[in-house]
Amino acid sequence: MDFLIDNECFYKAISDVNKAVSLKTPFPILSGIKISAYHDSLVLIGSNSDIVIEKVIPLTLDGVKVLEVNKSGSVVIPATHLSEIIKKLPAKVHLRVNDKQLVTIQSEEIVTKMFGFNSDEYPKLPQFDETDYIKISSTELIEIIKQTTFAVSKNESQPVLTGVKMLFKDNHLSFAATDSHRLALREIIVDSNINGSFIVPSTSLNELTKLINNDNSETRIYVNDNFMVFKASTFTLFSRLIEGNYPNITGLLPKNSKTIITLDTAQLLRGIDRACLFAGEWKNNNVQLEIIDGKKIKISSNSSKIGGIEETQNIRVINGETDLTISLDGSYLINALKVIKEEEIRLSFGGSMRPVLIEPINNPYYMHLISPVRSY
Amino acid sequence: MDFLIDNECFYKAISDVNKAVSLKTPFPILSGIKISAYHDSLVLIGSNSDIVIEKVIPLTLDGVKVLEVNKSGSVVIPATHLSEIIKKLPAKVHLRVNDKQLVTIQSEEIVTKMFGFNSDEYPKLPQFDETDYIKISSTELIEIIKQTTFAVSKNESQPVLTGVKMLFKDNHLSFAATDSHRLALREIIVDSNINGSFIVPSTSLNELTKLINNDNSETRIYVNDNFMVFKASTFTLFSRLIEGNYPNITGLLPKNSKTIITLDTAQLLRGIDRACLFAGEWKNNNVQLEIIDGKKIKISSNSSKIGGIEETQNIRVINGETDLTISLDGSYLINALKVIKEEEIRLSFGGSMRPVLIEPINNPYYMHLISPVRSY
Repeated sequence: MDFLIDNECFYKAISDVNKAVSLKTPFPILSGIKISAYHDSLVLIGSNSDIVIEKVIPLTLDGVKVLEVNKSGSVVIPATHLSEIIKKLPAKVHLRVNDKQLVTIQSEEIVTKMFGFNSDEYPKLPQFDETDYIKISSTELIEIIKQTTFAVSKNESQPVLTGVKMLFKDNHLSFAATDSHRLALREIIVDSNINGSFIVPSTSLNELTKLINNDNSETRIYVNDNFMVFKASTFTLFSRLIEGNYPNITGLLPKNSKTIITLDTAQLLRGIDRACLFAGEWKNNNVQLEIIDGKKIKISSNSSKIGGIEETQNIRVINGETDLTISLDGSYLINALKVIKEEEIRLSFGGSMRPVLIEPINNPYYMHLISPVRSY
Repeated sequence: MDFLIDNECFYKAISDVNKAVSLKTPFPILSGIKISAYHDSLVLIGSNSDIVIEKVIPLTLDGVKVLEVNKSGSVVIPATHLSEIIKKLPAKVHLRVNDKQLVTIQSEEIVTKMFGFNSDEYPKLPQFDETDYIKISSTELIEIIKQTTFAVSKNESQPVLTGVKMLFKDNHLSFAATDSHRLALREIIVDSNINGSFIVPSTSLNELTKLINNDNSETRIYVNDNFMVFKASTFTLFSRLIEGNYPNITGLLPKNSKTIITLDTAQLLRGIDRACLFAGEWKNNNVQLEIIDGKKIKISSNSSKIGGIEETQNIRVINGETDLTISLDGSYLINALKVIKEEEIRLSFGGSMRPVLIEPINNPYYMHLISPVRSY
């Protein structure tokens, strides 16, 4: 193998696939990046037990020549050292591999030699059927992931809850995440011939958001019994799926509410954020909401050791009963409010011991549910 | 105590004195900030076992009214909570304290209550003689501290070496720092009537650089048997001194050199930085320097596990013997080169087992010494 490549373009690709590479693997070769040179492109692959990331560098990018392959071939190079050295090279990189897997990397008068691995020992990429897929705007995909993944469970004892449930059904795609105390639900309409329900590790989706260029591009999603593939113009990400039965979500959504109020999203977020300063001293970041005189909401929290904080905010619209006091985990409310970009939100209460439904005004595609905490 | 204050100005002052406040203190009151309101100013004090920081807020700043004191008095408020809450308040802050030390902080419709401490229990500030001091440009003081403190010992077993030795003598002030493997020495000429030698904790000097505005202001330095005081227009920092005998430095400086070379500072720094990628796999970050053909310097490092790197750079001027190979701790070289802003440096070698002297060209006030490591 022998090729010349633009150092910045090479470094960017290495950084991207490096996101998948884990140093914790028991197999030294898996802490490496597989580099394959073909006559018309360079392919980089990094992987861990959850995901595989593949990047393809063509000969030219935006009309500029970035790659020249003198001899095709492939090798696996330790990821950390490769990334560090390429980052610090000043100019075009010349990379050669001899038949003993000794890699020579040269840039101007700087010569580096590294011991590589035989690429035949690197696991093969999974094969998938490329006929059925859905297309989704990359910007929208990032938004959906950010609106849901934060609600997954951090507790590994129930593996299905650490993933996001993606349900493909009749041109609808829905993302659901819950840790059993809260639920985030987002739906979009897509052009799809896929049907089925899949649980994707939230870590895979979070890595995906880091790889996607926040531009006007599209991402294609392919599914298979064992993995899901996200393919954008510059990369392909393979994610394993989580096996198991996801809890029934539709049964959790409240059917009727006693009190419905409309508030300013940003103002409520700032108020809850302030109340959480003291709430942190409690278990569950306990913040209390109380409707005052049917037109204001009081946000408060108290700590017997440090003190307390309270403030009132105007309710924009109120329907139903005006008598309400409820305690919530403030950090859950902050998480939910942060991903809502609409200016106003609607909170629906079924009583002080019932979950609160949070929905952006003028957006029927997102909803969030938070269970109250007992405050006494 | 009762005063109104601009929230941003108050937050800035709290952040500054908070730098001194430690959460590790066994005395709860010392994890607080002492706030004293006088008819013409507000004084904030934070402290730990090494330093005390005092900030004074006048009634007006740059002609804008920022403070209004309705009733003088003082109180000590837990630093972390005070800082967090003031940061999140949207507008002017009204702070009141009742006779039970209950602090009420109000901003618009937000009311916070916190339990304070009786300020009589807070330690008194040390007194010092304000007649003798030296004046130094704040910008220069920051530079001197950054050029020396990095070389102090991180090992607490020899306390004097964890500090910087400041020697005031005949209108000269010198800063010296060593961990016994390297030595940083910086001198300046000052208008001074102080004589003596003092060892200041490097942590105090580092905090000082964060407080000083990098403008055209001046800092006054006062000394005393037990502490040193740094007084700038916006704050006063008191630092304890380290007791003990500092090692004799002048005996360490090499009298004669076998080889003297001049190199480009930035290029050498980048080369050493690259060589350190592999050097990190060795003990002591071992980087080898070798003079080639009397006109180039080869920088290399090797790891039997991973590989090796080498590059050559042009020597600009060479005097003396042209045969030299020496191994150095690359991270020490990086530290030294990073604080030299001159374009060229001179390296003086006494042989492969003698310390290397590093001096910027055209600046007789800074020098750095690094002991070699045995490479075989």
